[in-house]
Order: sequence, then structure tokens, then C-alpha cells
Amino acid sequence: MKKQKRIRDYGIIIGDLPTGNLNKITDVKGIKVGHCTIDTNENKTGITVILPMEDNIFKNKLVAASYVLNGFGKTMGLVQIEELGTLESIIALTNTLNVGLVHDAVVDYMIEQCKNDNIKLESINPIVCECNDSYLNNIQMRAVGKKHVYKAIEDASTDFLEGDVGAGKGMRCHYLKGGIGSASRVITIDNHTYTVGVLVLSNHGRLEDLIIDGNKIGRKISERLNNESLVDKGSIISIIATDLPLSSRQLKRVCKRAGVGLARLGSFIGHGSGEVMIAFSTRNILKDDDPDIVNVKILKEDKIDIVFRAVAECEEEAVLNSMITCGKVIGRNNNTLEILSSYIE
Amino acid sequence: MKKQKRIRDYGIIIGDLPTGNLNKITDVKGIKVGHCTIDTNENKTGITVILPMEDNIFKNKLVAASYVLNGFGKTMGLVQIEELGTLESIIALTNTLNVGLVHDAVVDYMIEQCKNDNIKLESINPIVCECNDSYLNNIQMRAVGKKHVYKAIEDASTDFLEGDVGAGKGMRCHYLKGGIGSASRVITIDNHTYTVGVLVLSNHGRLEDLIIDGNKIGRKISERLNNESLVDKGSIISIIATDLPLSSRQLKRVCKRAGVGLARLGSFIGHGSGEVMIAFSTRNILKDDDPDIVNVKILKEDKIDIVFRAVAECEEEAVLNSMITCGKVIGRNNNTLEILSSYIE
Amino acid sequence: MKKQKRIRDYGIIIGDLPTGNLNKITDVKGIKVGHCTIDTNENKTGITVILPMEDNIFKNKLVAASYVLNGFGKTMGLVQIEELGTLESIIALTNTLNVGLVHDAVVDYMIEQCKNDNIKLESINPIVCECNDSYLNNIQMRAVGKKHVYKAIEDASTDFLEGDVGAGKGMRCHYLKGGIGSASRVITIDNHTYTVGVLVLSNHGRLEDLIIDGNKIGRKISERLNNESLVDKGSIISIIATDLPLSSRQLKRVCKRAGVGLARLGSFIGHGSGEVMIAFSTRNILKDDDPDIVNVKILKEDKIDIVFRAVAECEEEAVLNSMITCGKVIGRNNNTLEILSSYIE
Amino acid sequence: MKKQKRIRDYGIIIGDLPTGNLNKITDVKGIKVGHCTIDTNENKTGITVILPMEDNIFKNKLVAASYVLNGFGKTMGLVQIEELGTLESIIALTNTLNVGLVHDAVVDYMIEQCKNDNIKLESINPIVCECNDSYLNNIQMRAVGKKHVYKAIEDASTDFLEGDVGAGKGMRCHYLKGGIGSASRVITIDNHTYTVGVLVLSNHGRLEDLIIDGNKIGRKISERLNNESLVDKGSIISIIATDLPLSSRQLKRVCKRAGVGLARLGSFIGHGSGEVMIAFSTRNILKDDDPDIVNVKILKEDKIDIVFRAVAECEEEAVLNSMITCGKVIGRNNNTLEILSSYIE
Repeated sequence: MKKQKRIRDYGIIIGDLPTGNLNKITDVKGIKVGHCTIDTNENKTGITVILPMEDNIFKNKLVAASYVLNGFGKTMGLVQIEELGTLESIIALTNTLNVGLVHDAVVDYMIEQCKNDNIKLESINPIVCECNDSYLNNIQMRAVGKKHVYKAIEDASTDFLEGDVGAGKGMRCHYLKGGIGSASRVITIDNHTYTVGVLVLSNHGRLEDLIIDGNKIGRKISERLNNESLVDKGSIISIIATDLPLSSRQLKRVCKRAGVGLARLGSFIGHGSGEVMIAFSTRNILKDDDPDIVNVKILKEDKIDIVFRAVAECEEEAVLNSMITCGKVIGRNNNTLEILSSYIE
Repeated sequence: MKKQKRIRDYGIIIGDLPTGNLNKITDVKGIKVGHCTIDTNENKTGITVILPMEDNIFKNKLVAASYVLNGFGKTMGLVQIEELGTLESIIALTNTLNVGLVHDAVVDYMIEQCKNDNIKLESINPIVCECNDSYLNNIQMRAVGKKHVYKAIEDASTDFLEGDVGAGKGMRCHYLKGGIGSASRVITIDNHTYTVGVLVLSNHGRLEDLIIDGNKIGRKISERLNNESLVDKGSIISIIATDLPLSSRQLKRVCKRAGVGLARLGSFIGHGSGEVMIAFSTRNILKDDDPDIVNVKILKEDKIDIVFRAVAECEEEAVLNSMITCGKVIGRNNNTLEILSSYIE
Repeated sequence: MKKQKRIRDYGIIIGDLPTGNLNKITDVKGIKVGHCTIDTNENKTGITVILPMEDNIFKNKLVAASYVLNGFGKTMGLVQIEELGTLESIIALTNTLNVGLVHDAVVDYMIEQCKNDNIKLESINPIVCECNDSYLNNIQMRAVGKKHVYKAIEDASTDFLEGDVGAGKGMRCHYLKGGIGSASRVITIDNHTYTVGVLVLSNHGRLEDLIIDGNKIGRKISERLNNESLVDKGSIISIIATDLPLSSRQLKRVCKRAGVGLARLGSFIGHGSGEVMIAFSTRNILKDDDPDIVNVKILKEDKIDIVFRAVAECEEEAVLNSMITCGKVIGRNNNTLEILSSYIE
Repeated sequence: MKKQKRIRDYGIIIGDLPTGNLNKITDVKGIKVGHCTIDTNENKTGITVILPMEDNIFKNKLVAASYVLNGFGKTMGLVQIEELGTLESIIALTNTLNVGLVHDAVVDYMIEQCKNDNIKLESINPIVCECNDSYLNNIQMRAVGKKHVYKAIEDASTDFLEGDVGAGKGMRCHYLKGGIGSASRVITIDNHTYTVGVLVLSNHGRLEDLIIDGNKIGRKISERLNNESLVDKGSIISIIATDLPLSSRQLKRVCKRAGVGLARLGSFIGHGSGEVMIAFSTRNILKDDDPDIVNVKILKEDKIDIVFRAVAECEEEAVLNSMITCGKVIGRNNNTLEILSSYIE
């Protein structure tokens, strides 16, 4: 995998907490991320998958929660997460109009996974999240098919590329090139270390509003480009993972703090933007053969502040990583976007 | 269209309010319903579409709301309805694992609709609701494809069949045969008449629990059948329409009252059941060329009780219609279900 | 304590599950209920307290949840229950305009409790629920003061009166006399028995709508009385307790099923009625000196149906008990209400 | 009224939008704010009231919404705002343990208001919000009584003091002195100007986290003071007003954007902090004698971004004004807090 220059490599350090080894969501043990990118004249799009564990998640459900900060979006799967507080499927990120086909491919994959485990899968809650990449991508073509989903799953590993890859290929963030970004933080509670990681698919925000660690850089870039002021239309998907034992109620609280990172970057959480957060903990695994009364662990509530801080930091850094790692992409109709690294170096 | 014997034809009258002309959701002017049924050895399934208006709904958004009484379900599209309070797509009902392919077909259809109106559709919030028909249907095959969705749309008209048709083909309600049912009520407010209509896809409930207008018939049938007691696993989708001017907040209140009808029929709103309600009003249409400040009409809040009553009555009667109109269906593995009409006549 | 004739004593058996010993919420071990009734010419009102445990609940927080089925009400304390999923105060029920003074008295009591435990209480989330008894009670007088709250706490015991006592003194249910009612169910999970109990303060519903176990008795009484049809204005508060280990998410699901009991009794959950449910579990106690990672027990999710059924049954029976145990009350302006027992015997 | 030096007077300009005339919530026509401050050895506390209109609001209900960003708080009145989307009472801010007595005083006031209008008030939803001032104030004394509430109402006018006044007397913000602050923005939609105003009662945040317009000043102050790191414990109440016609759904969206302002100031929305937002529009007034179908105006949804921006800016500036206008307060036990102006000048 090629080495990418990330926001820390430019000397920009977000927050105070130490990062994990890779400074990616995959620092939470067991998680893998994979991409499949579609890069043709008409299509700049793709798929990114988050595999929350090695084993079949359908028979090892994880405690989860979601939060919709702004619901101008089409993410599917949240109804059941909200009710049951569990995740039972891999998570797929793609473009808006491709949610259906990706859903179908995830169903295929989960049926196969379960067949290997002698489970006849007849109900599953696939999580498919989306942002709209139609500025660079011919979105009506719904280019992402079953084979791309499977390739992304195959590709999944603990280290992974950021920027204009996978579902991030055609995305736009603060009107610069956006896409996939990640970050992690290590926190210590009662002498044990735990990891919090975030992966974003960034496609939101106005250029003039971008602030990097207090520097109103968006305004400056905008002036240089003589850009007209454009509306915040897009979305940002945030996937949050941790190995801390948190209940679904606690995970929902954690989700809300991702919004802090977005606000720090200058977003006003625009009307046309779908801000969706999904969080899960790898610590408590719920199984079919659990006893009727299950023993679980949860974090003592008044220890949760450090998790909130970690998520806010991760979110802010993940979005910056999603932008700074992007190369130039020339999309359909020769549409293109400036890249953040041109203005930082 | 063949004439079906409905619950009123058996002398069972639910509630006090007068019905609309057809006693179906299509009594609300402009609404059409269509089915496409798949009936093979392996597949007893299909699709039912609700077209909320004659014109292209994407450019004539309707005020809408949703409510999840129990979220063990995979309905897609609720995030945006909740945020924006509008419906911008036709509504499709199908089986659980077919949500993806049906989503994709609805996207196709909406792209075409918009093309006719010179709109390049690059974002759309399709509403796809589901119940699990895997007892009678080989659900893993995902038999419902684009052509079925299109056929259902073509088939749509103001009158439509109930029972084991369309998405209802393979459904099970209180462990008898269930499926599509509908009912309507006419209410008078300030000397004007308005209509409230409900369409359900019924697939929930335990046999022993079924109560019809106070008669604990489920217990009796269960004893006759020597059935073992089975869990409530399934779902019920309720689509509520009215020509009354209601805000999205008011429509959410209305959605909640559908639960009254379910409880009257003996349901405890079981854990394994997805109870999802979606309501829309045809009265206020939101368009792209609206002025910045829009004039809308809403019902005075303290007049809303009659709407609550109408919805509760419609829900109860619609579920009964969904059962009583069903014929015998022999599904995969020769699975079959008793039909309610055998126990009423 | 005088023996009251309850709905079962009339041969009306709600549901299938066995009741607890007293068939009251206090069958859940540790819970006590107390009343203080104010009965003067002008005032028919009072206070009812639920003490969730023997010990000081502020330092022994219980897992809790709430649900608002219809929010035309002024209950206080729900914001924090929703966020933290815990109960840290006793619960007080009173009339609408008395919420403030009762809040203040509960603060006094909790300060004292904590003082005994060497805790300087500077923040507390008192739960004060209310219904509007202004038909029989001069509500503007806010007759319930600190001394009444303290008397109710003193009065608290495992057995307690129902009907027109405490906060129930002036309440009206389905336009007959209502007030305090309770019921319990015993359920067996994995060979252990657990108890679910409900206490209601009933003040909702229309007379014509009342149904008792399938018998549309309200319509009959209404015809006999030549009553004009009146709107559903009032509220019903439902307190749900169990010794099963449930998470706050699970308890919220449980709360929702109380609505089933109300619908069975004929309510349409009217606009003007505040339907508020609060549930808590006595099983997991959260303490200040807990370790950072807490071990808790929760019910396996797919075992929860029996709890839903128990709550629906309890709710239905508790409301009936709240009505059937009432004597005649002649309130301010000589206002009075018929009593249900006149129509059952 | 003494002239106070506000954050703009220090050359710190938050955001881009123009302010209203006073740069306070009272720039929204009809709104008045009043304080009553209690300043004794033991008590540093008080009450602040927001009167949303000249006339009796109970018979002129305003469209409203609320949002709880973090619910570690005891604000009362939100249940009904959420259900009905209206405000029917004045708003009172005070200390945590005083919610009950202030509720009772507001009931008194509203009864009198209604008596003047020949309405016999028997149900009212008072809005009482709180923060915990126990560091400076002997909160167990519940010093705020009926007379203080009435004095604050009498005191209400379009111009009003900020900082350590009224409910703000004993508050702490980012571990400096906090209290009451306000700001407003003027926005133009379709050639008409509208005003958005915010009033906060600030009592949240950690010192090290405070950022002012990108300047990490909190960290610097903390180092100078050799302060130990303290937890975020407190709350912030945000009251948002506008003369734009917004629906309750839209107002809830607006409420959420206040969180952007808090995040910009460095808050992580700590666990122990109650972040509650209430918004109302003065434009659509709902009356008892409205016709059954009411004509209302709402903002076209895709014009709402400017309102979001305005609220985020107002929130950020209001919090800064709440701090910068404070003088030194020496509270009970000689507890005291540094003031922001010492570090800005």
C-alpha cells in the first residue's frame, strides 16, 4: 500500500489525546476496511466496506447505536439499530443512487457467510450509507454492483488508503476534494487502554466555512479562487468504533459528539447535508446461544467524557485526512475540484 | 377486478365513522395502488406500490411523517421523512430481502418520471417497506425485480385487490394468511368532508391473541387446530393518507394511533415484529418554484381527535380485510396457512 | 387498611398470566406506595408517592426509561431519564398545577435522605407526574404542600389503597370516577420467576369508548345517562416496575406496551390527554463507588415478549382497578361522577 | 441601565452576518427580558424571565420546538412543546433546585394574566430551565421565591443586562464566571429582513477547552492559573427566537445548530452538562378562536441555511457575552471565579 501524507504529516495536530498505532479506525482490534474504486470517464465512484469483526457478525451481534444530526440522507438500516441496539451486518458506504444494488450485494454476502455457519439467513439488517457524488460521477448509472462489493470485502485489511478511494472517489468536502478519512485515539480508563476510531465518508460543507485548527483557510482559498458562494449540499457519514464496553444508549451519546468535530471544521450542519453517525462496540458480543440473562459490561457513566473528547478529535482529524490525502480527480463533464494539499504545503 | 368479500360483508363493523366510497385508501383523491404478484412453486411474493398522486411526486412533494412503533424492520427512507417532513417518491412494499432490488427499480422509475419533466434526478429518497414472507416464499431468491415493480406501477388504479396479492402474497397475520388490506373513513370538519385511508401489509401477531371486535376468536381457532404457541415474528406496514391539511408533526401523531387498531386486534406489539407507520397529506404540495415564504394550511390542533379515531378504526378494519380476503396459499416446502374466512362463515 | 373490591372480584380476568401476591406494583420487592388525600369542600386532590427501594435511591440509582405516547402533559424529570437511563429520586404523582410545590417538597425530602448518608445534595432529578383533576378539585389553589408529600412518604407501605385516594382523589377516567390503580404479573424466565407491576393514575378517555374485556360497556352507560359526548381531556400516568434486569433501551420498549392496555380499554389516545410511561428495574443498582467498568445483567432480547405481554395486561387491569375501587366523590361546585361499580354489580 | 462592554467591543467579531440593533434576543420584536438577582453572603442566584410577547401568551400560543443536545438537566415543559409544537407560557431561568418554586410562581402569574382576559386557567405548561450554581450559591436554600419571579417580570424590557445578573448571578462557564448573554443576527429572505436572537444561561465547559474565534485561550489561562483539570459539569440553556415563520419541525432543526456555537468555543458537550435549546417563532400565533383550518406561513425549506448560520453565530457570541460582561463574584465559602475580561484586555 502506498504511503499517504496525512494531516499530521503537515504538522497539524488535532486535539490532545494520543493516537493509535495506525491512527485509523482499524486500531480497534478486529476491524478491517476495504475499498473498490470505479474510475472511468463517466464514473468516479466506488464502495468502502467496514468489517466489524473477523467472524460472522450475524451470529456475533455487536452493541450499536446511530444518530442523525441532519437527516437529508438515505442511509438504510437505522430503524433496527435504534430499536435493538445491535449491529448484525457489515457496513457499506457508497453513492446515493447505489444504495439498492449495494444492499442486494450485502444480502448475498451475508447469506453466504451464514451458509458457512449453517444458518439459513432469511432476515438481515444491512447497513448501507451514502453520500452524493454526482458532481464528479454519473450517478444515474449506479455503477457499483455486486462484484465491486465483493472486491471491497476481499480487499479489506487493517491498513487501508484514504482520500479519493472506494466510496470516496467522487466525493467533495467543503467544495474541495473529499472522500475517505480516518483517525483514532487511545484512552486510559482504570489502568486499561482502549481505542476509539472513526472513519468518515466526507461530502459536506461550504468552502468559505472551512476552518483548520482555528485557521479560516476556506475563506482564503475561496478568495484566491474567486469562487461564488455555494450551498452546503452533500453529506457526511461517520462510523465510530471502540473496544470499550458501552451500551447502545452510551454509544448514541458518543455519536452526538462527532458533530463537535464537524463544527470545529467550520460546518453549520447545512440543510442539504445528511449527517449520519453509527457507533458500535466490539466488547460485548450477543449470540443466539447466550443464556436468558446475559452478563454485559458497561462503562460507568461519569467516565464517559474522555470518550466524547476522543470522538470529537477523531472526527475532526478524520475529515481532514479525507481531504488532505486526495489527489486531483477529473470527473464527468470534466468537472474537477481543488485539493486541500495544494493549499497547505 | 373480481369482487372480494370483505369483513363488513360478514356483518362485522369496526367503529362508528362512515367509510369512503370504496372503503380503501384510494378514497383519498389522487391515490392509486397497484400490485404485481409472483406465484411459483418456490416464490409466493410480490410488490405493491402506492402512488400518492397523478403527477410526479418528486416535483410535488407531500407533507409526510413516519413513526416506528417497533423497529425490528428494514424499511428504508424514514431518515429523510423525519428530517424534512416530506414524501418525494412513490411507496413500494415488498419482502425483506428484496428491499435493495426494489429500491433500484424505484430509482429507475423516478429517474424516468423526472426526465419527462426535464429534471435530472440525482438524489431521491425512495420509500421501500418490507415484511418477511419466508414461511411461504423462498426469500433468499429475491424474486422481485425491476419488471415486477414496473408492472405494479402500470397496474395501479383507484380500485385494487386485497389479501394474498402483490407484496401480500406470502404474508402471515396472527398465524393465519395475511397480506394487503385497506379501509377508509370520512370525517366532517367545519362542514367540509375529508377522507382518511389506510393500507396495510399485515404479517404480524400470534394466533391465540387474535381478537375480532371483542371476540377472542384466535384462542378458539388455536384450540381447534391444536397449534403450538408461536412467537410474534413478522411485521406490519401501515400507510396512512388523508386530504386533510396536516403538518408533519400532526401526521406523526396520527401515525401513533394506528397502534390502537393493532392492540384492539389482540397484538402485544411483539419484539420480533416491525411496526412501521407512514402518513402523508395530499393537501399541501411543496414545489421547487414556491415562494420563499410558503402559505400552508394546517388543522387546528384541538380538532384532531376525529382523525385519531378514524385512523384507529381504519387500521383495525384494514388488517381484518387483509386476512378475510385471502385465499389458501400453498408455499414452498408445501407450507400453508389457515384462512380467516374458514372460521367466520 | 380496608379491603377493596377489585376488578377480579367481579369475575373479570384480564389476560392469561398469573398475578403477584397482592396484584399490585409492590409485588416487585422493595417498592412501597403511599398516599396523602386532601378532601375538603374545595379540594379533592392529593399526592401519591412511589418509593422504588428501601434505601436512598440517590446513591442507589436504578436503570430506568420513559416514553411519551401523547405529550399533552407536564410531567417533569424525563429529560434526564432519557439521557442517563437512570432514576435517582422517588416518584410523586399529583395534580397539574401542583407540580412545582411537590417538586420542592421532593427536593426537601431527598436533601434529608442524603444528609443522613453524608451526601450534600446539590443536584437531583425529581420525578413529578401529574393529571388534571380540575373537574372535582379547585386546582388553582395548589392544595398539595410539603406536609402532604411527607405524609404520603410516611404512609408508604407494600399494600396500599386504590381508587379515589392520594393523587387519585379528584381524577376522572372515561368520564367515570378514576384514580389510582395497580396490578402485577409473575413471569418465568429460565426457571426463575420475576415480577412486573404497574401503577396508574387514570384521568383519560371518553365514556362512550370504554370497553371492558370486549364488552362495549361505555356506550351502554352513556345511553343510560343520556350523556352528551365529551372530549378526551385528561391524562394517564403509568409507572412500571420489574425485578428483571432490563437495560434502559429495553425498558423504553416495555413502556410502549402500556399503550396496548389503554387501546384495549377503548381509548384512542386522545389529543388532550397526556400518556406518560416511566419504567424502572430494581435489579441493577448503579452506585458512586462502582468500578469504572460495571458488570450488569440484561435480559436476552428475544425473551422480552413475555414482559411486553405482562405490561399490557397489568396496564389494562390497573386502569380497571383504578375505576372499580372508587367511591362516589362530590367535588367543588357539587360536580360529581358516576362510579363504575354501579354498572358492574 | 449601565452600559456593558461586550465581546465586540474587544474587537472580537463572531461570524459574518449583521447584528440587530441591540445585538440581543430582544431585537426580535415583542420580546422582553427581565432579571431579579439575589446577592447575599449565602446566595448568589436569581431569576431571568423571557416574555415572548406583550400580550398573554396563553391565548396567543407561539410555534415552538425544543432540542436536548445533552440531557443531564432538569428543564421542565419540554414534553408538551415536543407534542404540540407550541409555547403557551413565559420562560423562566433559575438554579437547579429552584425549579419547583419558580414553577409555582409562574403558575401564579399565568393565572393572573388569564384572569385579566377572563380565562380560568386550570392547565398550563410553564417552561422552567435551570443550571446549577452551587459553586457560588447555597443552592439548598432555594432562595428564589414568588416575589423574585414577579420582580423579574416587572423588570422586563427590550434592553437588559448580561453577565452575573438574574439567573446568571452564580453561574460558571468554562470555569470562568458565566451567566446571561445574548446576541442577534439580521437575515434577508426574499427582500424582507428577519431577526434571529439567542439568549443563553451559560454554566458549562472546561477551562482548558475554551477557544475564542480560533484562539486557544483557555489552555493559556489554565497554565497561568496552575489550575487542576476539572470536569465539565454544569449546563447551558439556549433560548432562540425569530420573527421568521418557521414550523416546529423547522425550529427543532434550528435548535440543533446552537450546538455548533458551543463546539466552536471548545466544548465537547460534556457528560455532566445539560444542553437544552428552546426555539420559538413570533410569526404564527395560534388562538382559541382560530378557524378549524388555519392558514400559516412557513419558510421554504431550502432557504433555511441562513437561519442555521445565524443561530450558530448568535450562540457563540451570546456565550462570549455571558462571560465577558461578568464582574467578579465572591460566593459562599468565599468561592470565586476568574473573569474573562481580565484575560482579554
